[in-house]
Amino acid sequence: MNPNALLELLAQVQQGSLTPAAAADRLAHLPFEDLDFAKIDHHRPLRTGLPEVIFSAGKTPSQVADIFAHLAATGVAVLATRADQSHFAAVHAAIPAATYHATARTITFPSKNPPQSKGLIAVLCAGTSDIPVAEEAAVTCELFGTEVLRIHDVGVAGLQRILAQRERLRLADAVIVCAGMEGALPSVVGGLVAVPVIAVPTSVGYGASFAGATALLGMLNSCSPNVTVVNIDNGFGAAYVATLIARASTR
Amino acid sequence: MNPNALLELLAQVQQGSLTPAAAADRLAHLPFEDLDFAKIDHHRPLRTGLPEVIFSAGKTPSQVADIFAHLAATGVAVLATRADQSHFAAVHAAIPAATYHATARTITFPSKNPPQSKGLIAVLCAGTSDIPVAEEAAVTCELFGTEVLRIHDVGVAGLQRILAQRERLRLADAVIVCAGMEGALPSVVGGLVAVPVIAVPTSVGYGASFAGATALLGMLNSCSPNVTVVNIDNGFGAAYVATLIARASTR
Amino acid sequence: MNPNALLELLAQVQQGSLTPAAAADRLAHLPFEDLDFAKIDHHRPLRTGLPEVIFSAGKTPSQVADIFAHLAATGVAVLATRADQSHFAAVHAAIPAATYHATARTITFPSKNPPQSKGLIAVLCAGTSDIPVAEEAAVTCELFGTEVLRIHDVGVAGLQRILAQRERLRLADAVIVCAGMEGALPSVVGGLVAVPVIAVPTSVGYGASFAGATALLGMLNSCSPNVTVVNIDNGFGAAYVATLIARASTR
Amino acid sequence: MNPNALLELLAQVQQGSLTPAAAADRLAHLPFEDLDFAKIDHHRPLRTGLPEVIFSAGKTPSQVADIFAHLAATGVAVLATRADQSHFAAVHAAIPAATYHATARTITFPSKNPPQSKGLIAVLCAGTSDIPVAEEAAVTCELFGTEVLRIHDVGVAGLQRILAQRERLRLADAVIVCAGMEGALPSVVGGLVAVPVIAVPTSVGYGASFAGATALLGMLNSCSPNVTVVNIDNGFGAAYVATLIARASTR
Amino acid sequence: MNPNALLELLAQVQQGSLTPAAAADRLAHLPFEDLDFAKIDHHRPLRTGLPEVIFSAGKTPSQVADIFAHLAATGVAVLATRADQSHFAAVHAAIPAATYHATARTITFPSKNPPQSKGLIAVLCAGTSDIPVAEEAAVTCELFGTEVLRIHDVGVAGLQRILAQRERLRLADAVIVCAGMEGALPSVVGGLVAVPVIAVPTSVGYGASFAGATALLGMLNSCSPNVTVVNIDNGFGAAYVATLIARASTR
Amino acid sequence: MNPNALLELLAQVQQGSLTPAAAADRLAHLPFEDLDFAKIDHHRPLRTGLPEVIFSAGKTPSQVADIFAHLAATGVAVLATRADQSHFAAVHAAIPAATYHATARTITFPSKNPPQSKGLIAVLCAGTSDIPVAEEAAVTCELFGTEVLRIHDVGVAGLQRILAQRERLRLADAVIVCAGMEGALPSVVGGLVAVPVIAVPTSVGYGASFAGATALLGMLNSCSPNVTVVNIDNGFGAAYVATLIARASTR
Amino acid sequence: MNPNALLELLAQVQQGSLTPAAAADRLAHLPFEDLDFAKIDHHRPLRTGLPEVIFSAGKTPSQVADIFAHLAATGVAVLATRADQSHFAAVHAAIPAATYHATARTITFPSKNPPQSKGLIAVLCAGTSDIPVAEEAAVTCELFGTEVLRIHDVGVAGLQRILAQRERLRLADAVIVCAGMEGALPSVVGGLVAVPVIAVPTSVGYGASFAGATALLGMLNSCSPNVTVVNIDNGFGAAYVATLIARASTR
Amino acid sequence: MNPNALLELLAQVQQGSLTPAAAADRLAHLPFEDLDFAKIDHHRPLRTGLPEVIFSAGKTPSQVADIFAHLAATGVAVLATRADQSHFAAVHAAIPAATYHATARTITFPSKNPPQSKGLIAVLCAGTSDIPVAEEAAVTCELFGTEVLRIHDVGVAGLQRILAQRERLRLADAVIVCAGMEGALPSVVGGLVAVPVIAVPTSVGYGASFAGATALLGMLNSCSPNVTVVNIDNGFGAAYVATLIARASTR
Repeated sequence: MNPNALLELLAQVQQGSLTPAAAADRLAHLPFEDLDFAKIDHHRPLRTGLPEVIFSAGKTPSQVADIFAHLAATGVAVLATRADQSHFAAVHAAIPAATYHATARTITFPSKNPPQSKGLIAVLCAGTSDIPVAEEAAVTCELFGTEVLRIHDVGVAGLQRILAQRERLRLADAVIVCAGMEGALPSVVGGLVAVPVIAVPTSVGYGASFAGATALLGMLNSCSPNVTVVNIDNGFGAAYVATLIARASTR
Repeated sequence: MNPNALLELLAQVQQGSLTPAAAADRLAHLPFEDLDFAKIDHHRPLRTGLPEVIFSAGKTPSQVADIFAHLAATGVAVLATRADQSHFAAVHAAIPAATYHATARTITFPSKNPPQSKGLIAVLCAGTSDIPVAEEAAVTCELFGTEVLRIHDVGVAGLQRILAQRERLRLADAVIVCAGMEGALPSVVGGLVAVPVIAVPTSVGYGASFAGATALLGMLNSCSPNVTVVNIDNGFGAAYVATLIARASTR
Repeated sequence: MNPNALLELLAQVQQGSLTPAAAADRLAHLPFEDLDFAKIDHHRPLRTGLPEVIFSAGKTPSQVADIFAHLAATGVAVLATRADQSHFAAVHAAIPAATYHATARTITFPSKNPPQSKGLIAVLCAGTSDIPVAEEAAVTCELFGTEVLRIHDVGVAGLQRILAQRERLRLADAVIVCAGMEGALPSVVGGLVAVPVIAVPTSVGYGASFAGATALLGMLNSCSPNVTVVNIDNGFGAAYVATLIARASTR
Repeated sequence: MNPNALLELLAQVQQGSLTPAAAADRLAHLPFEDLDFAKIDHHRPLRTGLPEVIFSAGKTPSQVADIFAHLAATGVAVLATRADQSHFAAVHAAIPAATYHATARTITFPSKNPPQSKGLIAVLCAGTSDIPVAEEAAVTCELFGTEVLRIHDVGVAGLQRILAQRERLRLADAVIVCAGMEGALPSVVGGLVAVPVIAVPTSVGYGASFAGATALLGMLNSCSPNVTVVNIDNGFGAAYVATLIARASTR
Repeated sequence: MNPNALLELLAQVQQGSLTPAAAADRLAHLPFEDLDFAKIDHHRPLRTGLPEVIFSAGKTPSQVADIFAHLAATGVAVLATRADQSHFAAVHAAIPAATYHATARTITFPSKNPPQSKGLIAVLCAGTSDIPVAEEAAVTCELFGTEVLRIHDVGVAGLQRILAQRERLRLADAVIVCAGMEGALPSVVGGLVAVPVIAVPTSVGYGASFAGATALLGMLNSCSPNVTVVNIDNGFGAAYVATLIARASTR
Repeated sequence: MNPNALLELLAQVQQGSLTPAAAADRLAHLPFEDLDFAKIDHHRPLRTGLPEVIFSAGKTPSQVADIFAHLAATGVAVLATRADQSHFAAVHAAIPAATYHATARTITFPSKNPPQSKGLIAVLCAGTSDIPVAEEAAVTCELFGTEVLRIHDVGVAGLQRILAQRERLRLADAVIVCAGMEGALPSVVGGLVAVPVIAVPTSVGYGASFAGATALLGMLNSCSPNVTVVNIDNGFGAAYVATLIARASTR
Repeated sequence: MNPNALLELLAQVQQGSLTPAAAADRLAHLPFEDLDFAKIDHHRPLRTGLPEVIFSAGKTPSQVADIFAHLAATGVAVLATRADQSHFAAVHAAIPAATYHATARTITFPSKNPPQSKGLIAVLCAGTSDIPVAEEAAVTCELFGTEVLRIHDVGVAGLQRILAQRERLRLADAVIVCAGMEGALPSVVGGLVAVPVIAVPTSVGYGASFAGATALLGMLNSCSPNVTVVNIDNGFGAAYVATLIARASTR
Repeated sequence: MNPNALLELLAQVQQGSLTPAAAADRLAHLPFEDLDFAKIDHHRPLRTGLPEVIFSAGKTPSQVADIFAHLAATGVAVLATRADQSHFAAVHAAIPAATYHATARTITFPSKNPPQSKGLIAVLCAGTSDIPVAEEAAVTCELFGTEVLRIHDVGVAGLQRILAQRERLRLADAVIVCAGMEGALPSVVGGLVAVPVIAVPTSVGYGASFAGATALLGMLNSCSPNVTVVNIDNGFGAAYVATLIARASTR
């Protein structure tokens, strides 16, 4: 339930078109909308500052489309992550204005009242194969109203590549670093900037990379104290936190 | 070395007050102090916003005391973590004004120019046994000039305890949550606040807690998107990042 | 060997149509029926209170159908779990009255003497993607004669969803909680009810969820003492134990 | 905020004594209080059926003694687990009537109004070295008012030992099985009884027993469907759930 | 090369019928046949008592067929394990008399001088899904000239099934036990027989069975001291050792 | 219930002194007793060929001494493994003729009727640090009446050491190979002999040896098919199985 | 940028032919070519002695072809590893002279100025299934200008196979050993040669080989001190280091 | 035994100065010295270029001293690693000229014919706590006759520290990099030099460093292709291989 809807309901009570008992009943059944298979948390924007997001993996196209449409109807920015072409087809049928970002595997639909762009987030990746995760992060930041600085393929085996970006990096309110294999880039970046670094281990690699576990462990043991870590391939989560930081920085 | 310093140096070369060879030498000579067994990074406060910190475990008392004294001499706030009584004895002999925080196992010495207190960080722990890790975080925040709200023993098996703190939690610029065992508290807290939550898994537990690995894994899989994670028992690291966020929020 | 068959055999002894020696021989060779590739344990209903169940994964459709038909012939309730469409096709050909539950991936056939419905089991899941596991549990409970209260999508990141269900939860004789990712829901539910909570980790998640291992470990370390745990995705096992508890509660 | 309070608030809106905006603000800040759990909070025994328990490991003797005395003053049965002699010394100084169970490493103090003994729980262990865990379970059951049947050293390598106990086992309302090494005993017991079996892996073993992890994994994969599992060495947790089941069985 | 052959060679040198250079060359030239991609160890039957065996997984059909044909040409019994239909097609084209065992996924071709059948090996499996592994073991034993007693579906959750087999089990010179999930059957069987038990963990199971790792760990921790273990799904290896034992027993 | 008891019961039915229903009830409660294993139970040496053995770790000195004395009184060979000096002191007080083997950490007491020495077992170890495990195996073999060939420090990095032992190795009925670190020796030995090789991983090593887990895994993946494996440091178990094989070989 | 280039640049500043601002800009501008999705490190041959290599897995065919063509244009030897037929098709369209090595899954294009062949590297594999990894190593060595001695199928279960190669092995400047399963071959080879042995664990095996992790762990624990290890299946990396050693040996 | 010696021996047989039996005996008799608990490999210096080394952990002081004295008597350089003060006391009593290196925990005794110093090896460590491992490497290199460049505390969080060392690093024939925590330093160093980098993970760290496993995994996944890896804390092994490379480079 978005704030406007709540005010409207209370106005109806004030105006006498809704009894207190009926209003209480409606408030008790919300603040989430029950689609039977999912309970949409319309209350989240008020409570946590950013709208609910749809994790598409393991959901059917029609489930994703239903939730997407219900969220879009409230006017908030809508984001579906881990969405494949079949998810998008179903969403597109319901919401023709929705956009598919193929590399990032996300579907977006802008807020009716998009926020003024706030802050700058640098999104780095160590290698070309990490770009899909980095794009999930970048698309998320942009949907939530933050400017993004994309810096690709700056792994630590050729330090001059990241060192050349130092000045640009220092403009960012937060830095997201996506890396697979040994996951060393966040430690190096952490030593170059004065803002939080959010490390995203990726499942890029083979053999003893153990599908991202090695990068994850390396990042958790970073010798740079400004590094925190999210789950493997979780570009969205990193973007969510970076957005909160960028908003705070520009308040 | 900041861009201006580089331009200045190059200008000296242009003006002939510095030979190319001397300039090349200075460009190679960066600002760390070599104690033979350790290279103190005096440049860090400028580069990353907060001073270097001494990780005492695995260092001898005299090594810790030497580094502590060198840092204290520069006037920055000095922090030694994972310090036991023998470390403190050596530090205290060198710097009598240093303070030992027994529960937090840290030694602190304030900056000559302490920053004005900036922002508020909530430091939560799920159980009584998590308090040492929470205190490492709290002492770090306070030394770096941030106000701390301590909330102990609010584990999820008795939800009313954390729910009763909701109003106070909403005042914080960032929330640090320390929890062992299943590590569920950050997910619950993440759903209650609109700021970043930094989750610190603790090694509290037994059996299949695997010395904090279970809490760590749980936190990395949090269904609350505003949660990021640091290493097991790393209260210091959480505080470092939370401080950066609080400073940004109050800029 | 079902109870009737045993009585019949003993009656033959009583009537003299079977010698004690011949009867002893027959009793020693059973109480299981040997299909060569499987030994059906017809004795189980007497010994453990509930009939044997067919785990279909790794069995051919015709093997599942053979065992299903043999069990159905004895009049007990028959349940095949982890059954796909090809398993059902074979079972359906043999037992046209069998029912396929697609979401739960189970095939059921009711007992000739269905028990009076006994007790109430709440089956919760944290997210939409956990529904298949929850349905395996729910279908099992219903086949075994217990009433089921389904509550979906009540994960801990939006506490109001589970808190809104508290009154209904308290009616249950046992609670089954299915959750993937960090698996925190059983701890929260455990603090809200006074009955056993059976936690089912699901393989829902990605990256460091390690196909349910993280949820499993979290549940084993639950700070709520009324939580016990079954294998990943084992909705059937949870339902089996919950049914035993519900029957005891309503004796 | 209980339902009446909500109605009252809405009535104020209807009556014009509260504007919709002010009401919306109050509703946004307090979405759960209508459930009134702070009051329930003071009644954990009422809510969950059994009193709070003190996990002594990682707590100082004086912390344990303080909590113990506080609980004892309320008249409930008090239990401290994982308590060593130093914990007991402190508790004994405060509550001279407290009892130390050395093998079980627990301290108990009976309820002022001990419940009538309800139900029977069988507590089995596979080998002599598992007895401390089994005793933690047994002492817990007894304190909570359930009768205990202790059966020791009935590991599966000598089946006749457990088979000889079948008749006694069938009297139990629930069975707790403690086993280390390969942890096979719960599967065997599960096939012999018609009640829930709660498996407790123990850290008994060496080498590839990995401090109980092997037994834990084995129990989670039990081919007996009436087996659920708790954490390694968690005799208390098993007893807690078994007590709930026994109480239900004897209602 | 056996000692006599060495002495004979050296005697030839002494007698002048072989030059030192030629002898050095022969000493370097040991009895394997080089197919470029594989070195067939024709010496193995002499050295280790049983012929070399072809592990087909990861080899192309034509590679398997080439090696198979080379071995068959020497008159020994030939065995290819982990062979699929495409492997068999290639082998069959080269050696029409070769036999495919579909369940066991093996191809066999009998020795020109088959040994007299020696000894009896019992091959047990816990569940129907373990039969392929058990059959790999059984086919191997039979090819190597040992009689096999197959006993299927005797898992520990229904003890009467294995107990009914005790007398037959006691006839065996060695017992092979294949089991997945918790892998408890070898411990139970180990307590019933006086001969070595070779435990074969299978990858049967789901979730925390971790593709056979749980069964493997359980078997390594068996409380029956006559149990040794081979790799997951390694029916062939178990049969190989059992054959050696059976041959020794019947010498 | 032994067979006679069953016949008696059935005779009562035949004679009408027991109704079929009453008989069915008794049979349902006692389905296994007709197999008469309680009697066999008192004769483990008869059933499994070797006497019971005491695992001392985790038992008190007096527990070990009690069991030791009880077994010694029956005249069988007595063996206590993992025994330290305090265990031996207690045993020695009870049975002055018991012997302590310090390197092997075992206590032995010979059978009153020691078997004629049967067979030869080679006990190898890869390095000097593996000797304690090898000695546990050797002492066990000797107590059980088998001759032992000890071969130490023949690791694979200097192949000439093991190759020099080939002729002696070929005399053995079974070979026990103890190795830590990479655990490669069993594979090499397996290729040199025609008898079963029992591999014992040891906890010798550091870092990525993970206390023997690496050696264990290596042995389970041995490319020599005559290798089976026991638990880490389990010299006793290897000796037990080797003794069974040696006895069979010399029957 | 080498030191001379730096001095030259600074000299230009001194001489006034370059402004400080332009110099600062050039210092920031380091020699990599930006393809947007990848930054080609043309500086690498100078810095590290060997050209950059394309890891094709996870890159699209057109990405691989673009990078390949850019590198080829500079005249260096070009190597793409982990390339499938679709990668080759794209590369071939751009650079018709490129060669595909199907077994090695690599694409190569020779340097315009191929180095004189330097040194000899022996590339061994334990079994036929390890050949693809060995070929990746061999093709890499050859492209970089080193002669290769291929020795296949010399696993430790038939020692005579590797022993027969001793004299040839001693000619090598470095030895690469590829092995799966228990990974024992590098230890044996390490004891036979006086040069570095680079061990490549392969993912060949099943069950407890854990996709190469067991071989990796075994190699890391090698008792031969001249063994170092690279990632699972990383034939390229082993060849890279071996080439550096061979070049040094022949300087 | 080299080929010439073999031909000579065979020539003696041809000439009748050696009987075939005596020759067979000498062929079997290879050059190691048997101390009963250890077989000293005096042949190793010839075979592998460097003398045997004593791993002291798990050996008694007198065992270490005996082996040390036997090796010293042959005139080779003697090295005992992982030696504590008690090992040194025993060695010192036997060989008063032996030297103890406390930080490196090694005992050395120089060769009678020390080699001319050959080559330069850089030994780096990321942090102060890694120095003991680095010193084990450095002392080993020096004993084997290679010059060492020690560079301490140059972790990647302050890149200027390692960048300042670039010119010195480029003088080395091989680089050893010791690092704990995330183990990122070898990747960075690998990108700066044109020689092999031998990475030594150290057990420095806490929590998710898992005693060096995280650093080990990170190094195995290095994006710098000139990095190979040895076991955790294995400074000796790294030095051994680096010495072989340095010798080759200076031949």
